[in-house]
Amino acid sequence: MLDITQYDQINPPYRLLMGPGPINADPRVTRAMAAPLIGQFDPVMTDYMNQTMALYREIFKTQNQQTFVIDGTARAGIEAVLMSTIRPGDKVLVPNFGRFGLLLCEIARRCRAEVHTIEVPWGQVFDPNVIEDAIKKIKPRLLLCVQGDTSTTMLQPLDKIGEICNKYGVLSYIDATASIVGNDLQVDKWQLDGVSVSLQKCLSGPPGVAPLTLNDKMVDVIQKRKCVESGIRNENDVDGTDEIIYSNYFDLDMIIRYWGAERINHHTEATSMLFAARECARIVLQEGLDDVIKRHETNGAAMLAGLQAMGLEIFGDVKHKMNNVVGVMRPEHINDMEVRSLMLNDFAIEIGASFGPLKGNVWRIGTMGYNARKDCVMQTLSAFEAVLNKVGFKTVQGAGLQAAWDIYSKAQK
Amino acid sequence: MLDITQYDQINPPYRLLMGPGPINADPRVTRAMAAPLIGQFDPVMTDYMNQTMALYREIFKTQNQQTFVIDGTARAGIEAVLMSTIRPGDKVLVPNFGRFGLLLCEIARRCRAEVHTIEVPWGQVFDPNVIEDAIKKIKPRLLLCVQGDTSTTMLQPLDKIGEICNKYGVLSYIDATASIVGNDLQVDKWQLDGVSVSLQKCLSGPPGVAPLTLNDKMVDVIQKRKCVESGIRNENDVDGTDEIIYSNYFDLDMIIRYWGAERINHHTEATSMLFAARECARIVLQEGLDDVIKRHETNGAAMLAGLQAMGLEIFGDVKHKMNNVVGVMRPEHINDMEVRSLMLNDFAIEIGASFGPLKGNVWRIGTMGYNARKDCVMQTLSAFEAVLNKVGFKTVQGAGLQAAWDIYSKAQK
Repeated sequence: MLDITQYDQINPPYRLLMGPGPINADPRVTRAMAAPLIGQFDPVMTDYMNQTMALYREIFKTQNQQTFVIDGTARAGIEAVLMSTIRPGDKVLVPNFGRFGLLLCEIARRCRAEVHTIEVPWGQVFDPNVIEDAIKKIKPRLLLCVQGDTSTTMLQPLDKIGEICNKYGVLSYIDATASIVGNDLQVDKWQLDGVSVSLQKCLSGPPGVAPLTLNDKMVDVIQKRKCVESGIRNENDVDGTDEIIYSNYFDLDMIIRYWGAERINHHTEATSMLFAARECARIVLQEGLDDVIKRHETNGAAMLAGLQAMGLEIFGDVKHKMNNVVGVMRPEHINDMEVRSLMLNDFAIEIGASFGPLKGNVWRIGTMGYNARKDCVMQTLSAFEAVLNKVGFKTVQGAGLQAAWDIYSKAQK
Repeated sequence: MLDITQYDQINPPYRLLMGPGPINADPRVTRAMAAPLIGQFDPVMTDYMNQTMALYREIFKTQNQQTFVIDGTARAGIEAVLMSTIRPGDKVLVPNFGRFGLLLCEIARRCRAEVHTIEVPWGQVFDPNVIEDAIKKIKPRLLLCVQGDTSTTMLQPLDKIGEICNKYGVLSYIDATASIVGNDLQVDKWQLDGVSVSLQKCLSGPPGVAPLTLNDKMVDVIQKRKCVESGIRNENDVDGTDEIIYSNYFDLDMIIRYWGAERINHHTEATSMLFAARECARIVLQEGLDDVIKRHETNGAAMLAGLQAMGLEIFGDVKHKMNNVVGVMRPEHINDMEVRSLMLNDFAIEIGASFGPLKGNVWRIGTMGYNARKDCVMQTLSAFEAVLNKVGFKTVQGAGLQAAWDIYSKAQK
């Protein structure tokens, strides 16, 4: 029998989250989540839904009407797009450069796609010509690609990808979860057909909701698979001509009709998470989207310079690094776990471990969203210098901090 | 170009939500959601996850180790169980008595099940013998059934269902979203194999997270479909013998290993919604689970008596009504929309419309969770009497309120 007196109210300790995400939410976002609930079809609620659509069109730099959120974490957004567009047997191509490229393959496989990949070693990105050659050879129906893969810290250049896909009649889907508002993304200008993200990286929100945008081409493909739920079906409802979507929760045709003027009941929108999503976008646009990207660039550069000046080796192709996360090679004879434990337990700073081939050998340090700030960078560098010296990796005293200060001085000019 | 100065912080108007849910969240729950975030694998976070499992075992009255939450709304919980257990071609049986029975059919169809149903008219429930006869005839692999269907306000008796299913080797899944902690549910004693719920009804939380519980039999079926993600696969990982689960997000085998001692990375747990789920269960258990059910019984009885004493006709078989919602027949010549608008706009009270065959003819009034309180019942009855009289339905002045007072007096004895 459980003793309920042993369960107190939620009271997490203070943490500065400087890993690859989630990071500390902006206090304005957690306050927005504490707002009272309202009814699902209350005009105030549907107005907040419409406002959220408008705000995310700005975030995605798109005019796409179909810009809304999925109630689930980042991979729910990915799975909604893939489940709703990939028909069993469809060929997809994944240019894979890390753990989240593998996730796209994995989800596509669950959609029963015929999955093709091209690969580069972790720490590199693809030349667009290589992607074009693979498209010519494989002739996929969809191209699935990550923009920023936190597992390697790499940012795939995407400005040519939409154009290439259009040339060969291929639909493009981009997972921009880790890169959005920390790095440039121009959905319309770059001709990307579908993009999904989530809040817990540079958008300064909690995990649990996934904004996405779909252009008309993508919507057409989805609407061909229309299938009205029997619980709410009317006599004049006509289903689509293509195979049904093999999920109800991720049926984007139904979700579009829930978010649209029809307001057809689907799930019950997760009110508090919608409030969070709206506030995340609102505060970014209040600061100015391009200023937010610039802030990530400056703070990422300061963190990078600071780590290099401590004599640490950086993982991967630094030219193609995301602004908001950096991979640090663990120096020989230094214990991974000991360093992360000292950072967490003695400085309340969380930095990230790594996956797959990098496991145990690379620390991932983020400068994202609410934590893309000078004080967070300086505190982290200062603590990291102290910890590394304590465990036997010698640095020049203060060199890392001075290098970061130099970046900030230059950025102010 | 969007003018961001037109977008102010979230500021919903006051609403008393007396529909079929979502209802007003308990302020302790929204406060819990505003707590600072912590890292996904921070020991404090994984401890909160373990505590949430323990608390929901009490809520479900089960010893099931596999009791955790899905990051998504109620139907995400349903789809997770169905996707992970139904193999394409499996026969399922749905005793269908409302809109949410139809939803089970719909989701099962998306899982490519061979879906069989038995039906009763809306407003009735099944005799367990009828379900047993159908099982004998159809020989399904799974029985899928709703406990409380808010579309009809009916509560299906389930105390014999698990035993019947066991007798014929059928797996049972129950959607108890709308009934949990407002009505009795005993997962172990009633031998139910899998049950899922969500927070926004009697648990007094926001929509967006779906607690569920699975017994060992259900877990066995799921683990036969094990398939390790390539992004995190180790050399010694062995996949299951049954067909893979056709979803990554809803792959319960992976989610079990994320919530278990292995802590295998799957999605990033929606931290704030986890805090909400934990607080919802904690405050119910602090009050006492059986006392909470009793509170729903009393307040539901008061609302029912009040409505009847106003001369209104109640929809459906009142003997099998859920404690926490009642269906009221719209009197002839009274305009549905006018009544709901007056309630919302002039009293800030939301009551529910209806679906399908009841659309426009039945109002659904809830007494759930934080709003299963005397003041909410009395305010709603008082406003409803005023509105009905204003639009031309005459009642005996104060009769509804007195009938409710009588129920409360009796309950105190």
